[in-house]
Amino acid sequence: MSNETEYKLYGDLMLFSGTANRTLAEKIAAYLDLPLGEADVFQFANTNTFVRLRQSVRGKDVFLIQPTAAPTNDNLMELLIFMEALRRDSAGRITAVVPYYGYGRTDKKNQPRVPITARLVADLITVAGADRFLTIDLHAGQIQGFFTIPTDELTALHLLNDHFIEKAVPNAVVVAPDVGAARRARNFAEKLNVRLAVIEKRRALDGRSAEILNLIGDVKGKNAIIVDDEVDTGGTLLRGIEFLTEEKGAQDVYACVTHAILSDSAAERLKGSKLKELVVTDTVTIDPRKRALLGPRLTVLSVGELLGEVIRRIHRGLSVGAMFNE
Amino acid sequence: MSNETEYKLYGDLMLFSGTANRTLAEKIAAYLDLPLGEADVFQFANTNTFVRLRQSVRGKDVFLIQPTAAPTNDNLMELLIFMEALRRDSAGRITAVVPYYGYGRTDKKNQPRVPITARLVADLITVAGADRFLTIDLHAGQIQGFFTIPTDELTALHLLNDHFIEKAVPNAVVVAPDVGAARRARNFAEKLNVRLAVIEKRRALDGRSAEILNLIGDVKGKNAIIVDDEVDTGGTLLRGIEFLTEEKGAQDVYACVTHAILSDSAAERLKGSKLKELVVTDTVTIDPRKRALLGPRLTVLSVGELLGEVIRRIHRGLSVGAMFNE
Amino acid sequence: MSNETEYKLYGDLMLFSGTANRTLAEKIAAYLDLPLGEADVFQFANTNTFVRLRQSVRGKDVFLIQPTAAPTNDNLMELLIFMEALRRDSAGRITAVVPYYGYGRTDKKNQPRVPITARLVADLITVAGADRFLTIDLHAGQIQGFFTIPTDELTALHLLNDHFIEKAVPNAVVVAPDVGAARRARNFAEKLNVRLAVIEKRRALDGRSAEILNLIGDVKGKNAIIVDDEVDTGGTLLRGIEFLTEEKGAQDVYACVTHAILSDSAAERLKGSKLKELVVTDTVTIDPRKRALLGPRLTVLSVGELLGEVIRRIHRGLSVGAMFNE
Amino acid sequence: MSNETEYKLYGDLMLFSGTANRTLAEKIAAYLDLPLGEADVFQFANTNTFVRLRQSVRGKDVFLIQPTAAPTNDNLMELLIFMEALRRDSAGRITAVVPYYGYGRTDKKNQPRVPITARLVADLITVAGADRFLTIDLHAGQIQGFFTIPTDELTALHLLNDHFIEKAVPNAVVVAPDVGAARRARNFAEKLNVRLAVIEKRRALDGRSAEILNLIGDVKGKNAIIVDDEVDTGGTLLRGIEFLTEEKGAQDVYACVTHAILSDSAAERLKGSKLKELVVTDTVTIDPRKRALLGPRLTVLSVGELLGEVIRRIHRGLSVGAMFNE
Amino acid sequence: MSNETEYKLYGDLMLFSGTANRTLAEKIAAYLDLPLGEADVFQFANTNTFVRLRQSVRGKDVFLIQPTAAPTNDNLMELLIFMEALRRDSAGRITAVVPYYGYGRTDKKNQPRVPITARLVADLITVAGADRFLTIDLHAGQIQGFFTIPTDELTALHLLNDHFIEKAVPNAVVVAPDVGAARRARNFAEKLNVRLAVIEKRRALDGRSAEILNLIGDVKGKNAIIVDDEVDTGGTLLRGIEFLTEEKGAQDVYACVTHAILSDSAAERLKGSKLKELVVTDTVTIDPRKRALLGPRLTVLSVGELLGEVIRRIHRGLSVGAMFNE
Amino acid sequence: MSNETEYKLYGDLMLFSGTANRTLAEKIAAYLDLPLGEADVFQFANTNTFVRLRQSVRGKDVFLIQPTAAPTNDNLMELLIFMEALRRDSAGRITAVVPYYGYGRTDKKNQPRVPITARLVADLITVAGADRFLTIDLHAGQIQGFFTIPTDELTALHLLNDHFIEKAVPNAVVVAPDVGAARRARNFAEKLNVRLAVIEKRRALDGRSAEILNLIGDVKGKNAIIVDDEVDTGGTLLRGIEFLTEEKGAQDVYACVTHAILSDSAAERLKGSKLKELVVTDTVTIDPRKRALLGPRLTVLSVGELLGEVIRRIHRGLSVGAMFNE
Repeated sequence: MSNETEYKLYGDLMLFSGTANRTLAEKIAAYLDLPLGEADVFQFANTNTFVRLRQSVRGKDVFLIQPTAAPTNDNLMELLIFMEALRRDSAGRITAVVPYYGYGRTDKKNQPRVPITARLVADLITVAGADRFLTIDLHAGQIQGFFTIPTDELTALHLLNDHFIEKAVPNAVVVAPDVGAARRARNFAEKLNVRLAVIEKRRALDGRSAEILNLIGDVKGKNAIIVDDEVDTGGTLLRGIEFLTEEKGAQDVYACVTHAILSDSAAERLKGSKLKELVVTDTVTIDPRKRALLGPRLTVLSVGELLGEVIRRIHRGLSVGAMFNE
Repeated sequence: MSNETEYKLYGDLMLFSGTANRTLAEKIAAYLDLPLGEADVFQFANTNTFVRLRQSVRGKDVFLIQPTAAPTNDNLMELLIFMEALRRDSAGRITAVVPYYGYGRTDKKNQPRVPITARLVADLITVAGADRFLTIDLHAGQIQGFFTIPTDELTALHLLNDHFIEKAVPNAVVVAPDVGAARRARNFAEKLNVRLAVIEKRRALDGRSAEILNLIGDVKGKNAIIVDDEVDTGGTLLRGIEFLTEEKGAQDVYACVTHAILSDSAAERLKGSKLKELVVTDTVTIDPRKRALLGPRLTVLSVGELLGEVIRRIHRGLSVGAMFNE
Repeated sequence: MSNETEYKLYGDLMLFSGTANRTLAEKIAAYLDLPLGEADVFQFANTNTFVRLRQSVRGKDVFLIQPTAAPTNDNLMELLIFMEALRRDSAGRITAVVPYYGYGRTDKKNQPRVPITARLVADLITVAGADRFLTIDLHAGQIQGFFTIPTDELTALHLLNDHFIEKAVPNAVVVAPDVGAARRARNFAEKLNVRLAVIEKRRALDGRSAEILNLIGDVKGKNAIIVDDEVDTGGTLLRGIEFLTEEKGAQDVYACVTHAILSDSAAERLKGSKLKELVVTDTVTIDPRKRALLGPRLTVLSVGELLGEVIRRIHRGLSVGAMFNE
Repeated sequence: MSNETEYKLYGDLMLFSGTANRTLAEKIAAYLDLPLGEADVFQFANTNTFVRLRQSVRGKDVFLIQPTAAPTNDNLMELLIFMEALRRDSAGRITAVVPYYGYGRTDKKNQPRVPITARLVADLITVAGADRFLTIDLHAGQIQGFFTIPTDELTALHLLNDHFIEKAVPNAVVVAPDVGAARRARNFAEKLNVRLAVIEKRRALDGRSAEILNLIGDVKGKNAIIVDDEVDTGGTLLRGIEFLTEEKGAQDVYACVTHAILSDSAAERLKGSKLKELVVTDTVTIDPRKRALLGPRLTVLSVGELLGEVIRRIHRGLSVGAMFNE
Repeated sequence: MSNETEYKLYGDLMLFSGTANRTLAEKIAAYLDLPLGEADVFQFANTNTFVRLRQSVRGKDVFLIQPTAAPTNDNLMELLIFMEALRRDSAGRITAVVPYYGYGRTDKKNQPRVPITARLVADLITVAGADRFLTIDLHAGQIQGFFTIPTDELTALHLLNDHFIEKAVPNAVVVAPDVGAARRARNFAEKLNVRLAVIEKRRALDGRSAEILNLIGDVKGKNAIIVDDEVDTGGTLLRGIEFLTEEKGAQDVYACVTHAILSDSAAERLKGSKLKELVVTDTVTIDPRKRALLGPRLTVLSVGELLGEVIRRIHRGLSVGAMFNE
Repeated sequence: MSNETEYKLYGDLMLFSGTANRTLAEKIAAYLDLPLGEADVFQFANTNTFVRLRQSVRGKDVFLIQPTAAPTNDNLMELLIFMEALRRDSAGRITAVVPYYGYGRTDKKNQPRVPITARLVADLITVAGADRFLTIDLHAGQIQGFFTIPTDELTALHLLNDHFIEKAVPNAVVVAPDVGAARRARNFAEKLNVRLAVIEKRRALDGRSAEILNLIGDVKGKNAIIVDDEVDTGGTLLRGIEFLTEEKGAQDVYACVTHAILSDSAAERLKGSKLKELVVTDTVTIDPRKRALLGPRLTVLSVGELLGEVIRRIHRGLSVGAMFNE
């Protein structure tokens, strides 16, 4: 790679951040040794989001950092309106950097008469002016196919994996908390070189009042690492912890997810559970109160350097895959 | 019109309502003697909006009623996601009925490096699947040109005008609260056959700390009717009332607007003002607390029958203009 | 449903068939009591596909039946060119009926620098003039999101399930042949009310020359039903059969897939295996020679009536979900 | 600004001119010290417009200068066909420079069953291949929102304002000739720091044969400066002059508009009026005969340098707003 | 055909006419026993074309008749603006009926750096809102491929052919006036069952001052019928007549074209030539003065009934090809 | 040209080749002194085409060489899928280099109810991600108008012409094998400065069992050079040779076409004919067996240098027309 030609395709690199995760944006900016672009981003009294750039972006290669976790609709609209402002000020190229892709779980019609909102959002991002899309750990890989603009989906799996390799949990088994997470868990287990188990949910046959959990595989006397893409309300995770420890004889239970959504009282409930450690990244802002609740049981790894380096390479036209020996 | 041929262009007419103004939707449904279509519309714990239709809309001529006042982004995204669900369930035709068009005031670049969000929103509505667009009193008529799908912009001016004609305020003058509202006020004054005055705002020359109001025209000893498209925070209106009464010698002041946005403490502040009466319509939901604050000084006229009749005509392929002898 | 209004949205229903699976098209036509539309469909000496309609389709509601199994590119191009002919002859509405969606397995970037051909194909079908898309058992549900035109994805799972319910295989366990198939197998197992097991593949650690299979769950002494969306070269299936019977102690092994692709010498190799029964549907043409090879071990269920009824309902604007009590 | 990085985003800058205002194009070229690109632009005997480039534009950053004043349709089609030629010769980027945007007054549906031609024209310009759009003083700012390609709307208000500041007309008042022009007049008045008055037109109540003018504000004994975006047939202006001087006691009347359309016998009629001075710019070609008629009463300020500098900045990716301390 | 089902796909059929050939539109209306739709179509003093519909077209199946002969740009823009008005008034379907397709001869890049205006115009017509396109005798059949909306290209060849069959010119030979017209002339000759000859033009080798005509085939002592799609300035035709009679010994010369463009002094020059008869259709308006000049030597066949019947069939969803036993 | 500025518009130039004509791609690469880009291009057992790039193309200026001769559908789909891979790997610009454009002869509706596949293919190429299109000798020049992306159509006529000029066939006449080829033959004849003759085909009047050939012009005792764009099954050519020599007294017959399709047994049948020489180019791969059959009677001229130089110029933003003194 050392003799790869570098060239600038657009004007200078500029980073902007919406209000969704300014801390992450600052880490990226620090890595790139660049200031964040200046802009006023706020809501009027009537809740209309407004963006006013305080610098010209004419011809610039702009990266706008805005994950779309809660409040999802506000963050998404802010992303779209920000791009509208960038486009009308003649930005040379706009890359929507969305470390967490909200609405990703509404990615197919698993029941009739529902929307595929993950596709709708891809169209909204495109129509608002994105030239490229950069994200981390989509709920399903197919979501890349919802876009026609070039996309880069990074994975934080390396970061999370390295954490557990270093930690060297003895007698470990990786557990998928449901069949939908089986593939991701398999990949994780393969890298740790440990066995895999899968929790399978079914509707109880005696009515719909309850669901039954089955374990496929074995966790008895082992330390379980539950792997998923995100922890939302924590419901699936909490049921999994209880099921594994109380019914299936697992010892310690770890959880390892990219996106720390932690909706509702997820943090409180996890605090009250037998969870040994929750390992996440900083793709979304984690409320300090929730951090405090979970205390040392919460490990947050930063994707700031990963995103920083990828942005640098995209700007310079260098291979991103080469970072991962691909 | 009696011998105009009627025909159905699509399947049966179906009405759906988002959560933004269900009361208005029910009035429209009552006028049309139709039930509102059934759908689950809610936010998950992670603030993702979700829509699940409880009836098939295959081939139907669907009208979805959803103004986009506060919370604007939630209401707008709900509108878009609802349409995504309707489209994927093969609705025959989808008309977005948006009695109040949020973001309408961000309709041009009146300063550099800002978005034209009103155009962006038109594109979002179109990409989400709207075949037609129906609205009331846009902030600027040009916003119709932001759409390429067929649009119908209705006006509530007739309703508001009739109210004042009936009321017969003596010695009246119509006042535009700023030059941007002059055209609307002129049309109103012409129908009432009274004089027009315009309040003009300027930046003070000795710095930017204050703005100066001038009155063009004369209100002395007269009863002023301030006409605008919406009342938002009420700031412009309140300054106008004070200026007209205290500096310019007006007697009673009335205000007459289509959209009762009433952001922040608008209702409280108007309650404390010399405003005699605020006449609005029900295009947006008005918080009962605000209604209570304003008490009998608030008159709310309903656009339900107007929208109901127009929807009926659109469904049957009848002229809408004919309703207004156009 | 009995009092649902029926209405015709377009001209008369017309069915056309490409050359990919005319037998299925004839079954659909028989169900609908309609003749297949007449058209010349052939390749010139230079391998250019040509289509000439022998009947006017002006204003008609046309359904074109063409799965895109091997020869995939010829069948796909024939589908596209046929639609181009229909569109230019002013068909009222064109529904691409593609019972098997070729290229469905290339639905995400599971390695760098590869195409998402399943999305490309969705775009090709749309640009060629399809107004709607109708298919059966996509490789991944997200593929519906690759389309913006309305789609109906049917499932043959009911048919396959009913077959095994009737057959009442004793002591059964459902097996997913790899983690990617786990969700489909789970759904199948839930309906049969039997346990689920999952075969997990890993790269051997001592080099890349071999892959290692693990079984998650238990099949010892049981009759296994392997469930997948399609059988292609049969490699995964054959390894699964051998692994389950020789290493894991399963008794009889059944396989149950929607799409009988049977590439290469799949039929020969399955004939030589311990497979007890292969249950498939007729979404794609199965070469008579392959049928003969597999003999009574092959059961082919027809999707003809399913497609026929759905086409009837789409044409008449009736709910499709209602067929499945949805 | 001095340390702003400059870079070229496309190939060399090239200027082309249609036939609508070659004089202005030459001024721009002179400012930029560039020759105008060579092309044959003419109509065949059958009135088909034809364009043949005499130089390659491959990869070049092309600016095509063509206002769309009368003959509007010929000038507009010439603009479109010229861009078609540029695009097919692989121009790197095409900026449509349209100093006067014809059809700008048909920008909304102010009566039923009329077109919004200003939006249609925006679509035509885009579909013909424009990558950017550059114009001066649109009839309404919202017209920028009719485009999705990046646009720059410049204003000649600075030029016109400076003229009157230098002239120092004593005892001046700015007059909007109708309510639609009020905002522009207000901005003008604010910069001159003089009062504003507005002429308001109404239909006479005794039939539709006549219209009645009202003056809002006061001009008695003052020198009036009528401000508008364009002077077309001069009707509004002439009625305004007469009304102000004969009925309202104004002394001298000046007029100040950006676009000197001067349709029909506008020049003759203005020559016969009490108009003291008409100040315009050279966005459109002014017929020498009309110039002669108006003689010293006509002042034409050139926008050539303004356009030249803006084109230079767009080409180099420099901020345009910075020119105006924005 | 008698038992073909008829159904209406849209609202009632409505015919509108631009100003380009109202006489033809009236013939079509008479055939269909329908009044022409009412609309104001005119140019303002500033040469902006304006259209105001005087009837609602909501849901209607509208056919707009407007050939785009001289003044081409005015007629074309009128067509586009008329469709913009129809679309915004919610017409159900708009068919652009363009009996003569202006700019058809600019259909390929036969020299570098020229536009393909015929494609641009197809895009303009589509973007302005046409759902279908109906025309007669395009300059090249490939122009249909410039459209993606459904098109019907009719031919007047039957009409012209029948005229000559009835006339029974003895000893006839059909002549293509240049190689580009050879195919059309061949088809004509085949139907008359007479021989074909082709005039071939070359640049003289001694400079470019002159061109040399060669005759391929033989016309000596025969009566020649020159066949082309249009007569424009008449230059090619006049040179052909002179060449055939004076150099090649032809006796009488007839000319037979669909579109009577007759630019410049074509009529005068043809009047002065040896042309025996010019047979044309009324796709474009022929100036009465030109008709008078040519007197009995001009035969005009009407395409009114042909267009009327085709419009009727399109409206009712009947096969158009069936009219021609296709 | 020597002082023309060169600049790079995108990243480095990269050449890729599909499997359709790798020999030609290698010639182009040799001319440009560049290696061909590395990629795996193959079909899976299920006939799905797959492409995996083995190098990053991020930001690069990629030219993909793939004529679409037989197997047409496989080659075309490979082209599309290859571009999908390039686009998703963020290529800076993609030029589809298609030296032979398959489906070019299906370019118009010369009978009812047929597709215009040449337009469909243009849309497929565009939707798959091509930014530009480069081809040689289209069947009809209008096909360029099927694209809106910039295209360059080169001609091999210069090469073929030079060959015959050098050869100096005495007493030559150029023959168009049908009227559709007349224009191309005329251009060829003009450059050789020899006469032109045209073979005209008609249906026999006594039924449709046979077709009749007429010769327009004269070949008696002359050496005929048949000129066309391609030789497909050779049927037209063979009938032409026989007709010219046996019925019309021609001596030697040469044939000269750009694209050597040679479908079916074309080579065998030409070997058995009186054809003296067949001159073609290498736009498509010619089967070695066919080359052997035709032996020294086949002359293949290479377009490799032509394409190489044009690609170089496109990459550098230099005029292509300048190569031909245009």
